[in-house]
Amino acid sequence: MLKFYFAPQTCALASHLALEEAGAVYEAIRVDFAKEEQRKPDYLKINPKGRVPALVTDRGILTETPAILFYIAQTHPAANLAPLNDAFELGRIQAFNSYLCSTVHVAHAHKPRGYRWADDAAAIAEMKRKVPENIAACFALIEDEMFAGPFVMGDNFTIADPYLFTIATWLEGDGVDPAQFPKVLAHRNRMAARPAFRRVLAAQA
Amino acid sequence: MLKFYFAPQTCALASHLALEEAGAVYEAIRVDFAKEEQRKPDYLKINPKGRVPALVTDRGILTETPAILFYIAQTHPAANLAPLNDAFELGRIQAFNSYLCSTVHVAHAHKPRGYRWADDAAAIAEMKRKVPENIAACFALIEDEMFAGPFVMGDNFTIADPYLFTIATWLEGDGVDPAQFPKVLAHRNRMAARPAFRRVLAAQA
Ligand SMILES: N[C@@H](CCC(=O)N[C@@H](CS)C(=O)NCC(=O)O)C(=O)O
Ligand SMILES: N[C@@H](CCC(=O)N[C@@H](CS)C(=O)NCC(=O)O)C(=O)O
Repeated sequence: MLKFYFAPQTCALASHLALEEAGAVYEAIRVDFAKEEQRKPDYLKINPKGRVPALVTDRGILTETPAILFYIAQTHPAANLAPLNDAFELGRIQAFNSYLCSTVHVAHAHKPRGYRWADDAAAIAEMKRKVPENIAACFALIEDEMFAGPFVMGDNFTIADPYLFTIATWLEGDGVDPAQFPKVLAHRNRMAARPAFRRVLAAQA
Repeated sequence: MLKFYFAPQTCALASHLALEEAGAVYEAIRVDFAKEEQRKPDYLKINPKGRVPALVTDRGILTETPAILFYIAQTHPAANLAPLNDAFELGRIQAFNSYLCSTVHVAHAHKPRGYRWADDAAAIAEMKRKVPENIAACFALIEDEMFAGPFVMGDNFTIADPYLFTIATWLEGDGVDPAQFPKVLAHRNRMAARPAFRRVLAAQA
């Protein structure tokens, strides 16, 4: 059985939602960030990067949200979470998810985790100050250039949807009013009403 | 025919190398960063993010290194650049490439592009100061935990190899001595000697 390591209010939500949408058989295991469990030897054996998510499969361990999402889609083809036989459409999904991972998530991380890139307290405060501006710019690009609608990629739910949903739930905390991005906000509301999303949000609460 | 947008000394090298390894038919188009062409309207029509790489296909445009690399592997199966029918092995590759994209490349970018995350000059200088420490930590993890050898993933050349090669060529510029990472350094030297790599390095020079 798959074992899925997560912490609430993190990017691990995206993979958790995809597992549930896929109808996967998995055990969800909570990593307690308050106790810094992600940096303890037991967890570093699972993910030496000291981060969530991590997915333990019978062949080994996978990390990184875009990789886990795609693995779930590939191993649960009946759930139709990605156009597995269309290289271009798959490329679009991977490009979107890679943008979330490398740019949007990273822009957000400069608020809670500025110490990754600077030691000086004033520099960390300055990065935090700029987060709303950067996140708003990312979401403007998503709203205007990337979001096809009604789902992220167009007519079908894909692994891009739980990932955008996850990062969009951080908007208020990042000091950005989601009302500026009506398509993203409507998507977030629609996604939150899906049965699989409700089950995961309840399980992580 | 594929059109590939790049600038020298950037992450676009990884996709360029993969195109050449794949035997792809493509036109490589240089974006002049000295003239800030990446921020001009003509280029923003190709990639509204104002970044390289971008790959123009007959179905549309793809961006983001991990997505472009995987698309090249999928559309050139004879080149055998990824185990396309093995979801787990593919997951390992995507996890590695996602780590390079979201963590290692981003750690590097805090040196030339600190202004993305702060406006204050002292904060930008402080981020720059921490780059060697962060890059060294990333490469220690790659050397000790991720690099299988002789290729990144093990016995076969995959799309992870040109991507690691590309980021490893930045080590000296990032203030990190590559001799600390003998497996990565030997890999970099072996890769640089491959005919396809030599052709691309000459074309970008
Ligand atoms: N690129 C990774 C990032 C993973 C990541 O940064 N996870 C955060 C939570 S959103 C984490 O575990 N942070 C713990 C820490 O920094 O100590 C992915 O997309 O999965
Ligand atoms: N996540 C993107 C990052 C692309 C990126 O940041 N490219 C840099 C070069 S390494 C760029 O075009 N920078 C131009 C600029 O910031 O103006 C990818 O992996 O392709």
